[in-house]
Amino acid sequence: MVRVGVIGCGYWGPNLIRNFSACPSTSLEMICDTNVEHLARVAAQYPAAETSAEPEAVWGSDRVDAVAIATPVKTHYDLARAALEAGKHVLIEKPMTRTVSESEALVRLAEANGRVLMVDHTYLYMGAVVKIKELVDAGELGEIYYIDSVRINLGLFQHDVNVVWDLAPHDLALVDHVTGREVRSLAAMGSSHTDRGIEDVAYLSLDLGEDLIANFHFNWLSPVKIRRIIFGGSKKSIIFDDLSPDEKVRVYDRGIEVSRDAEAVRSVMIGYRTGDIWVPKVEASEPLQTMVRHFADCVEKGKRPLSDGQAGLRAVRILEAAQRSIRAQGERVVL
Amino acid sequence: MVRVGVIGCGYWGPNLIRNFSACPSTSLEMICDTNVEHLARVAAQYPAAETSAEPEAVWGSDRVDAVAIATPVKTHYDLARAALEAGKHVLIEKPMTRTVSESEALVRLAEANGRVLMVDHTYLYMGAVVKIKELVDAGELGEIYYIDSVRINLGLFQHDVNVVWDLAPHDLALVDHVTGREVRSLAAMGSSHTDRGIEDVAYLSLDLGEDLIANFHFNWLSPVKIRRIIFGGSKKSIIFDDLSPDEKVRVYDRGIEVSRDAEAVRSVMIGYRTGDIWVPKVEASEPLQTMVRHFADCVEKGKRPLSDGQAGLRAVRILEAAQRSIRAQGERVVL
Amino acid sequence: MVRVGVIGCGYWGPNLIRNFSACPSTSLEMICDTNVEHLARVAAQYPAAETSAEPEAVWGSDRVDAVAIATPVKTHYDLARAALEAGKHVLIEKPMTRTVSESEALVRLAEANGRVLMVDHTYLYMGAVVKIKELVDAGELGEIYYIDSVRINLGLFQHDVNVVWDLAPHDLALVDHVTGREVRSLAAMGSSHTDRGIEDVAYLSLDLGEDLIANFHFNWLSPVKIRRIIFGGSKKSIIFDDLSPDEKVRVYDRGIEVSRDAEAVRSVMIGYRTGDIWVPKVEASEPLQTMVRHFADCVEKGKRPLSDGQAGLRAVRILEAAQRSIRAQGERVVL
Amino acid sequence: MVRVGVIGCGYWGPNLIRNFSACPSTSLEMICDTNVEHLARVAAQYPAAETSAEPEAVWGSDRVDAVAIATPVKTHYDLARAALEAGKHVLIEKPMTRTVSESEALVRLAEANGRVLMVDHTYLYMGAVVKIKELVDAGELGEIYYIDSVRINLGLFQHDVNVVWDLAPHDLALVDHVTGREVRSLAAMGSSHTDRGIEDVAYLSLDLGEDLIANFHFNWLSPVKIRRIIFGGSKKSIIFDDLSPDEKVRVYDRGIEVSRDAEAVRSVMIGYRTGDIWVPKVEASEPLQTMVRHFADCVEKGKRPLSDGQAGLRAVRILEAAQRSIRAQGERVVL
Repeated sequence: MVRVGVIGCGYWGPNLIRNFSACPSTSLEMICDTNVEHLARVAAQYPAAETSAEPEAVWGSDRVDAVAIATPVKTHYDLARAALEAGKHVLIEKPMTRTVSESEALVRLAEANGRVLMVDHTYLYMGAVVKIKELVDAGELGEIYYIDSVRINLGLFQHDVNVVWDLAPHDLALVDHVTGREVRSLAAMGSSHTDRGIEDVAYLSLDLGEDLIANFHFNWLSPVKIRRIIFGGSKKSIIFDDLSPDEKVRVYDRGIEVSRDAEAVRSVMIGYRTGDIWVPKVEASEPLQTMVRHFADCVEKGKRPLSDGQAGLRAVRILEAAQRSIRAQGERVVL
Repeated sequence: MVRVGVIGCGYWGPNLIRNFSACPSTSLEMICDTNVEHLARVAAQYPAAETSAEPEAVWGSDRVDAVAIATPVKTHYDLARAALEAGKHVLIEKPMTRTVSESEALVRLAEANGRVLMVDHTYLYMGAVVKIKELVDAGELGEIYYIDSVRINLGLFQHDVNVVWDLAPHDLALVDHVTGREVRSLAAMGSSHTDRGIEDVAYLSLDLGEDLIANFHFNWLSPVKIRRIIFGGSKKSIIFDDLSPDEKVRVYDRGIEVSRDAEAVRSVMIGYRTGDIWVPKVEASEPLQTMVRHFADCVEKGKRPLSDGQAGLRAVRILEAAQRSIRAQGERVVL
Repeated sequence: MVRVGVIGCGYWGPNLIRNFSACPSTSLEMICDTNVEHLARVAAQYPAAETSAEPEAVWGSDRVDAVAIATPVKTHYDLARAALEAGKHVLIEKPMTRTVSESEALVRLAEANGRVLMVDHTYLYMGAVVKIKELVDAGELGEIYYIDSVRINLGLFQHDVNVVWDLAPHDLALVDHVTGREVRSLAAMGSSHTDRGIEDVAYLSLDLGEDLIANFHFNWLSPVKIRRIIFGGSKKSIIFDDLSPDEKVRVYDRGIEVSRDAEAVRSVMIGYRTGDIWVPKVEASEPLQTMVRHFADCVEKGKRPLSDGQAGLRAVRILEAAQRSIRAQGERVVL
Repeated sequence: MVRVGVIGCGYWGPNLIRNFSACPSTSLEMICDTNVEHLARVAAQYPAAETSAEPEAVWGSDRVDAVAIATPVKTHYDLARAALEAGKHVLIEKPMTRTVSESEALVRLAEANGRVLMVDHTYLYMGAVVKIKELVDAGELGEIYYIDSVRINLGLFQHDVNVVWDLAPHDLALVDHVTGREVRSLAAMGSSHTDRGIEDVAYLSLDLGEDLIANFHFNWLSPVKIRRIIFGGSKKSIIFDDLSPDEKVRVYDRGIEVSRDAEAVRSVMIGYRTGDIWVPKVEASEPLQTMVRHFADCVEKGKRPLSDGQAGLRAVRILEAAQRSIRAQGERVVL
């Protein structure tokens, strides 16, 4: 049983709290928020948990083995560092930190102290993504030719980060996890349509090596909501539609084959196969619950989480570079 | 009555021939193709038209006022130049020519000779695009914040041009027509997945000035077919879905308003309006027939076509620059 | 402030409890279930409410003005009768009772005692249905020609009622509310595909007079989920798609006009108008909360609820007759 | 090579003419229409075919082995009878005749004269239906529990038949072909919303024996177009969506299993399997061309067509009975 304290009762914190409370391998020991109103509202539902308006009370408590941090991004580093230094395991909301150097410091600290450092890249724990990873690893797609992601909606503005920092972590973690490829370079463009200067529409292009390019469209100003990723492969292709209630993963047996037969090359050099579509059933359990159990499992067995500090760092490295590219009018940034 | 000769009986020519034949203000006088088999197959259906395997017979004929050219792109310039020099009006399939200098030469020649030079940018003659243009011109969208276009499908490979030259002319003509903006600079990326080296997936980003960016995704390797353009505006947004049988144009009364009220700015600075959606009925007549009638009308009245040589030239200028940017790994090209 | 006691903590009760607890004009005073496990689980979240495993404690309590009943249908009558006799206002889950005579008795009792008797026909309190009612009342549809409803899914089997008693109350209440028409006769067919003999697929047809027929398809064995009602009108038509996240109500300006002009009649007697589609924004607030507030409002002001006992009775009358028609192989039953 | 004469150049005739002309195993010898304008318009495109305004010229001609009839329904019987009596093979548009007795007479005549009598039930020749038939015959669906068909649209009114005679033949032929079941009884309801008294909305229910009921919704007054049939099975279900461009057939591995295990029966008696969806690729060739080739093949080899006179007769028998049921307010008619 992993005893958990959660810092942050704002937008996302209550979801973590509910899941730690429901998880059979964790116990919710403490709830904390510097905003006492938020704290009181959430605490009422979890009378068994201790409450505090002081974060240091959480990592200072003997009742707590692990600290979960669901506060604004700019506070992640200080809170996580203190918790790790106090010997606690740490789960942080995405994105892990504001800067690469902060993330690097946390990774080093966790390793030095032998503590689990995990980022809440929730997508990795979705049944749909587990299925996609499985198919890709089994070679079903052949060579991946391109990845194209659209994540757009008329969304509530985040006050302190732009559309890339808000929406990209999901996709970056997913592409990182599914392909296992390192990003070599990237280019990003963004534009702001308010006088706050925060980008609300952005495009990002990642070079993943071996001719694999991944493109992303992030948009807070879209009249419709779309969350769709295409993995185009030489043998099969996958479309992941996160908004579809029951057809999230579709596998298309449509591919392109380059013929090297001389005769074929003379006339039509490329043969298409247009085939069946397959919509596999995917596990419908709540990803957050799976994530929370995985965290507990890693803490108990000393395992490395799927979304460990390194994964969090890789995502932040891309976010930081994307920001640089946007400021430089889309100039390519080598990582 | 405008007397027309059509050169090219391959993929697209028969569509032009059928429409010239059906149009009440044109008469189909000649049909020409250097491939006598193609010529014979089409000619059988139009016994009244003269046939020839020699293009020069078309522009040399007294029976013909105007020449329509539906041949491979690389032949456009020579054919159009000869027809204009022979005093004929000219309609050319898109893209107008292979290079900007060729297009410029044709524009100059047509002006010098006082002949109509028109490009078959068919989209401009669709009921849906007429409606979009009308709404934009009436200020319904407010300020256009961004344009995002996706034109992807598992398509038959063109043998001599890449995915940009194949698919972009439609969108470029449409954006040019609807916004009336000049392209200041662009950046494009593309990749090829065959050993022919011809790009089959590409992304293009146009800077249209005043913070308006238009982004395009072109793809021959997609498992699904999508042809969708979003015009995101400050007041309303439009989605043009060319594949929808009866909801091609959707107008979303969803906008974003930047409040300058001090009080509002302190808390939530941006107000969303989520409102009605309106799907206007659009004219269902065949765009090619409308295009052909417009051509005849311009010839008869000496009017400038909507898709005149200048429009054709503007599209080619972007195509050429996009090609340059792709070769330079996505470097921005100023026009 | 209306003080409420809720009987039933099974499937639906917790939703009522949550909404009474959140409603500013009601206070949740008592929670009751004869199953002490269910009771304990729910009670833990509402420490302020008194609990009891004895229903008579609820209507016997001075703390309670109104009793809400969310128990199996077969218990509705006894519980509601006792509560009304004890002078309490009563809200009952749909369907109101097992039989017409039970419903009639409750209606009489409520009237005799001057108490509010309301049925939880939740659909009437949805923003989408409020909008449809508004459009129909304003005459936007012209004459309603037909109503066609499909409510099908691969659903969990109810153990004690068939697919009509399970799914029809929603549609019957909606059609009753929107049209205000009385059902003159009906015919129903159903079939069972298990050895339990409970119908899992059924069709129902209601004659609403003046040539208006409403047809319904209810199905627990469908591979897909559909909840769609078409209101076909002489001027406009409405499609209500309950599963659409943001386009629940679509208004089609497509109608049929019968020409009485002699000339027109000779050739094409009927003129179609195919026009715009309009997707009005509808209120997104939770229908259950609206329902609960309406109940409190009726209790406080002595108003008649939209879904009063008479409405509940009308629905039960149709359910009972439908059952009779199914047993008689679809024979028409006059009401 | 089967030499064909086509009678009828109105709405559907030109499609037959085009397909007979294109089919390698038929030659288009004669074209006939009593309306000389229609005849002239079509004849112009097929200069090699003889023309006539007199139907008797077609069956009287030595150039013709087979007569295809695409005229109004009321003329089918006389034309087909004469052609059969003249020793010609006959293809008739659906529905075969106005009455059962007419159809029976044609079937007898064709058998007596040893000639092929075929009805153009085009659906049987669609790739999608071939696939569905294949899956059903292979037992993939298990026991078929129900069939539900919706065929609705805002369609052009037929002047002489109601919505059942207009739309039902497609579905009836399809269900007949796929299930191979005989219809035992039926009930139908219809209503007319013009003063012509011709039903424009109708519902039909067929009892196919062994608890299999097939229900149909036909509608000319719908704001949207839907053509969808569900085959619900004990093991799998199929949805045939004729309007989907590339997903016409979807196979759902979702079934219901009745457990007879005593323990299971006590608690939850029914187990659901919710599984994968599979969208098989189906042959995209034009069904009319396949139909025309099949006709030629049957004529040349003396084979019985899939949609022979008996199939045409079965459909007409249902249409006639449905008409009777509609007039009797939906009373069940035993066949």
